[in-house]
Order: sequence, then structure tokens, then C-alpha cells
Amino acid sequence: MVVREKILDLVISCFKRHGARGMDTPAFELKDFDIAGQFDPMIPDAECLKIMCEILSGLQLGDFLIKVNDRRIVDGMFAVCGVPESKFRAIGSSIDKLDKMAWKDVRHEMVVKKGLAPEVADRIGDYVQCHGGVSLVEQMFQDPRLSQNKQALEGLGDLKLLFEYLTLFGIADKISFDLSLARGLDYYTGVIYEAVLLQTPTQAGEEPLNVGSVAAGGRYDGLVGMFDPKGHKVPCVGLSIGVERIFYIVEQRMKTKGEKVRTTETQVFVATPQKNFLQERLKLIAELWDSGIKAEMLYKNNPKLLTQLHYCESTGIPLVVIIGEQELKEGVIKIRSVASREEVAIKRENFVAEIQKRLSES
Amino acid sequence: MVVREKILDLVISCFKRHGARGMDTPAFELKDFDIAGQFDPMIPDAECLKIMCEILSGLQLGDFLIKVNDRRIVDGMFAVCGVPESKFRAIGSSIDKLDKMAWKDVRHEMVVKKGLAPEVADRIGDYVQCHGGVSLVEQMFQDPRLSQNKQALEGLGDLKLLFEYLTLFGIADKISFDLSLARGLDYYTGVIYEAVLLQTPTQAGEEPLNVGSVAAGGRYDGLVGMFDPKGHKVPCVGLSIGVERIFYIVEQRMKTKGEKVRTTETQVFVATPQKNFLQERLKLIAELWDSGIKAEMLYKNNPKLLTQLHYCESTGIPLVVIIGEQELKEGVIKIRSVASREEVAIKRENFVAEIQKRLSES
Repeated sequence: MVVREKILDLVISCFKRHGARGMDTPAFELKDFDIAGQFDPMIPDAECLKIMCEILSGLQLGDFLIKVNDRRIVDGMFAVCGVPESKFRAIGSSIDKLDKMAWKDVRHEMVVKKGLAPEVADRIGDYVQCHGGVSLVEQMFQDPRLSQNKQALEGLGDLKLLFEYLTLFGIADKISFDLSLARGLDYYTGVIYEAVLLQTPTQAGEEPLNVGSVAAGGRYDGLVGMFDPKGHKVPCVGLSIGVERIFYIVEQRMKTKGEKVRTTETQVFVATPQKNFLQERLKLIAELWDSGIKAEMLYKNNPKLLTQLHYCESTGIPLVVIIGEQELKEGVIKIRSVASREEVAIKRENFVAEIQKRLSES
Repeated sequence: MVVREKILDLVISCFKRHGARGMDTPAFELKDFDIAGQFDPMIPDAECLKIMCEILSGLQLGDFLIKVNDRRIVDGMFAVCGVPESKFRAIGSSIDKLDKMAWKDVRHEMVVKKGLAPEVADRIGDYVQCHGGVSLVEQMFQDPRLSQNKQALEGLGDLKLLFEYLTLFGIADKISFDLSLARGLDYYTGVIYEAVLLQTPTQAGEEPLNVGSVAAGGRYDGLVGMFDPKGHKVPCVGLSIGVERIFYIVEQRMKTKGEKVRTTETQVFVATPQKNFLQERLKLIAELWDSGIKAEMLYKNNPKLLTQLHYCESTGIPLVVIIGEQELKEGVIKIRSVASREEVAIKRENFVAEIQKRLSES
């Protein structure tokens, strides 16, 4: 199978299901989905999370979780904990490391490297270790410190509405409000999210993979305005699928399972055991192409049969059609299964039909 | 229909039929196909022309022709006509204009603007007005001047072999050896080709389109070596499909036929005639998405029904599902055909099946 392509196909078909216009623009960004425009709160944001869930479920990567937070809650949390505004982003990027580092190490970085007062760090620590569902949102509304911060309250209000829509979409159980999610990128202005795979107990022989985030996104209402000459604001929310990372994960899993990772979809290889059969090979492969069959041959006048068969095995091409003196004399084509190495002779005029039959069966 | 996407799909599926590895590299160039490596002469080159034919036939753009020449024949022709080597490229780019300009204008440019001796220009004129099949190749082998040029003879030898393979592929009738084809790009080293649509007599009301080349390519054996630190030569031959130009042509034809050019594939729109039906719309659209149906709704809490129906008509969405107080009370969903404006009420639990039935029928 062609791994990366299968991943992209699934991603794209999901984007189309959600009305992606991207496919019709010349430079279609295959792994991003964005909704731009002035809309009612949290409806597009909820759809972005729905899209993430559909893709991650569809890819069958095992169980996953989407951490959600809001940039205004992050900033509000920093403010009420006593972080100087100049340090917001620096401390934010420390917080982001909590998915890979222990709290005590992150705390050490904030205090020693970034000069944060220890008591401030500890206040942050109380928050960033909280994660849960909509109940945590309610709880934070009551939080003596956080509830004093206007920004934070706005963020919490949006998250509450978001969870309502996520429940209607039937995906609330996949979403976790996580105060340790800060998303380094400066341009986020509201809701932020990040999808992580929950590492299933490694199967026999399977290497445990430290995968981290496979998809992420958020609301960036300021970004487009920055590029607009008149500075018109265009509210945007979007997501990005980590196709390369997902590809790596799937590829690793296939390898540990001993499955072949193919780089082409070629179904049939046209081979010959004798010299001077280029013309016959060209005629055969043209018939296959014209019948819509994915076919290859070596671009050599007189390749060795062994070289040709090795090529099929290394590239995972399942079928070989062989034409040689004997076949030509008898008016047949030999069809060989690369896996079983079985060969059968088929009448020349029927070989395309026979191949189509075999391909439809497999 | 989503025009550009349909074009790309056809191009990509053809590339796959020919063993494209591109799809598995992160930056997949959707409209180029290249064969790199040391192979026997003209076999990959012939496949590139076969691919062009398959794509242009598949796109049903009407009759087409692929002009073929060889950079060595162009240079040889210039040499034997007495063009100073320093002027080869400049004169080549004048020659390339022959598909849009008359010979006398091109001649004028070469003589007046580019300082070519009139008699030299006239000698070129005798050649560049020749085009034909393999017989013209044979004829040029006998040409008193051209046959004196080693380069040109190499090119003619390759073209002769190429035509042999094109005949085996059954596409020789689509290929025209055309001495006026020079292909401006410096990096071509051998065979060059360019596909043009043969303008069919314009149908009623259809604007005549001056289309020009819709696909082109050639052999560039030097290019990759230039980027290789050790300067290793990697022979390459490739083609590029003018997706944007083809898209423009198809779009123009559809418009003159009054067909709608869609920018999304959305199949169903979820609408409501009343206020406060956002929750129901969200539940319905999630059901559609989860059934693999391409669905959209407006990201508004309380959009006007007329706005919603206008959106469907302007974007070409064929079906609308409508949920309102009455439908909710009766436990039904109204399905509306945008084209016929007919509405039917379907039991809530059956509406997805009904929509799938309608989509499969259309």
C-alpha cells in the first residue's frame, strides 16, 4: 500500500465532506483546513474539532485525545499567577513542554532559566496539572483567582459553548480541557487544540513510539488582518494534520508487522526471458495502460529475467506478465503471481481480462 | 462539478498507471511526470508521449496534436543555415512564436530585431515550415545541408527510433515531427515536445479560444548534474501538464454551455426556517458527515431561510435537508431538491438512507 497517499486521500476526502474549497485553488494545501469569516461563536471551531476526530478515527491509529484550551485562558492564568506580561510567551513555551517533561523540570526551567519567582511558578503548577471535561470549565468559572480575569472568563465562556456543540457532534468524550496546553505560536487568539495518540500497550515486537501531537490548530483572528492593506480583520479558525508524523507512525507499525511499504500502486509488470522482445513488451504494456491497468516495465532493451523479477519483489508489484519465444509461438501470455510464484498461460487475446479479473478479486 | 480537481484526478490517475512514485514524496508535484536514470534510448521518452496522449484523450478536449522535435536538430539546423552560435537561443525563441505569428513577422523579428542575415533567415524558413510524420524524419536524413551535421543526425536517429515505439503504442498518428518547435528553455538536451489542441469549429455561442500549448516536455540530461555536488549526470525526460490552462479552457466551454462551475463537492445543505434550531442542525449535519456525506450549513445561529437557499443555488448544492418546528413535531425531515424545488417529508430515522439513495441515483 502507498502509505502517505492513503493518509492524504483520507484527509482530503474528509475536508471535502466539510465543504473544502481548497481543492479548487491551484496551490491546494493538502493538510490544512481553515474556516475564515465573521460567524457566530464556536460553530466553525466545533467543526474543526469534528474534522480532527473524523480523520484520526478514520486513520485507525488507535485511541486519541484532543487537548483544548484558549489563549485567553492561558494569558489570564499567567496574569493572575503574577507572571510579568513580558514573560508570557517564554513561560508559555515552557508550559508546552509538559507533554514531554515532568512538572519539576519545567518548573526548574521557568525559575532558573527564565527567572520566574518560585511562588509564581507554583501557582501556575496548580493550574497546568488540571485537565478534564466541561466540568473543569465550570470549576474554573468558580476559581477565586481565574474568575477575576476578564480575558480568562471570555475564554471559559467560549469553551463552555464549544463543549455544548461538541456534545451535539457526539465527540465530547474525545476532548479534554487541558490548562497545560499553550501552543507556542504567537498568532493564536482564542481556542487552541492539539491531538495526541494514546499509546496502546505495544504489541509483540512493536517498538513503543513517542508520538506526541499528530494534529493541531486554533483560532487566529488577527493574522489575516496583518496582511490586509486596510487592516480589515478576518476571523479564522483552522487545523493542520501532521501527515508526515502520521506517515512515520503508520510506516513504523507496518514495518514491525513485517508489511511491505509500497511507493507505487503498480499492479502489473511486463517481463521477458529473452533478448529482442522490447517490441512485444511495448505492445503489451500499452494494452494494459489503455485498459486502465497500472503497469511498469524496465526501460532496457534486453533486461535479465532475474533482474525483472527482483524488481517486482522489491517494489511489491503483485503480478507479472511474461512474453517470450515460446509464448509468442503459442499465442499466449504467461501470468505469474509474484507471491506464490505460480505461472499460468493465458490466450493472448484474453490476458487483459484475466488480469482485470485477478485484480478485482484481490 | 469541481473542474480543476477532476482534471488533477485524471492526470494523477494516469501518472499512477505509469508507476508514478511522486505520490509518496511529501511535496508531490501534481502536474509533472519525470523519468530519471540511465536507460536505453527513447523508451522513457516514448512513455512520456504516451502519457500525454492518455491524459489529453481522457480529458476529452477535442482533437489534439503533439509536436515533436529534438534540440540537437534545432541547433544543427541553425548551424547549417549559418546562424552564429551566440544567436542560437535568441533565434530559437523567435522560432517558437511561429504557432502564434506568421513566418514573415517572425522573419522580420529575426532579421531586424535580432540582426540575422536575410539569406540565413530564409534558409531557416525552408526548414521551419516542414512538419510531418516519420517520413519527414527520413527526408531530413537525406537533406543535403542537415545531413552534414553530426548533432542533427543524432537527433534524427533518436526520432526515428522514437516513432517506432510510438507506432507500437498506437499513437504515432497523434505525433507530428515539427521543425518549428524549439522550446525556449535552455536546459533541454534532446527530444522536445509540445501538445496543442486542434480548435474544433466553435459550437453555437462558444467563444473561439486561442489555446496554444496545453502540455509540454522533453529530455534534460544536464539539469540534475548541475545540482549534484560531484556533477554526476542523471539523464531525465519528463512532461508537464498545463492544468491551469486546461482548467481555463474547460471552464470557458462550460460557461458558454451555461453549466455551473462548482468550487466544492458539497452534496447536502442543512437548513432551517425558524430561529433557535442550531442544535438540531448540528445534530443532523453530524449524522450526514458520519455517513460520509458531504454536507454544509451556515455558521450562524439564526440564518434566514432565503439566505440558506440562495447559498445552495449559488454554490450548486443539489439537496437541502430542512428541519423546523413542524418537522420536529412530526418527527420528519424535509428533503428539498434545489433544481426542482420539490420537497418531501421523510421519517427522521430514514433521512440519511433516503439522501444516500438520491445521491447514488444522480
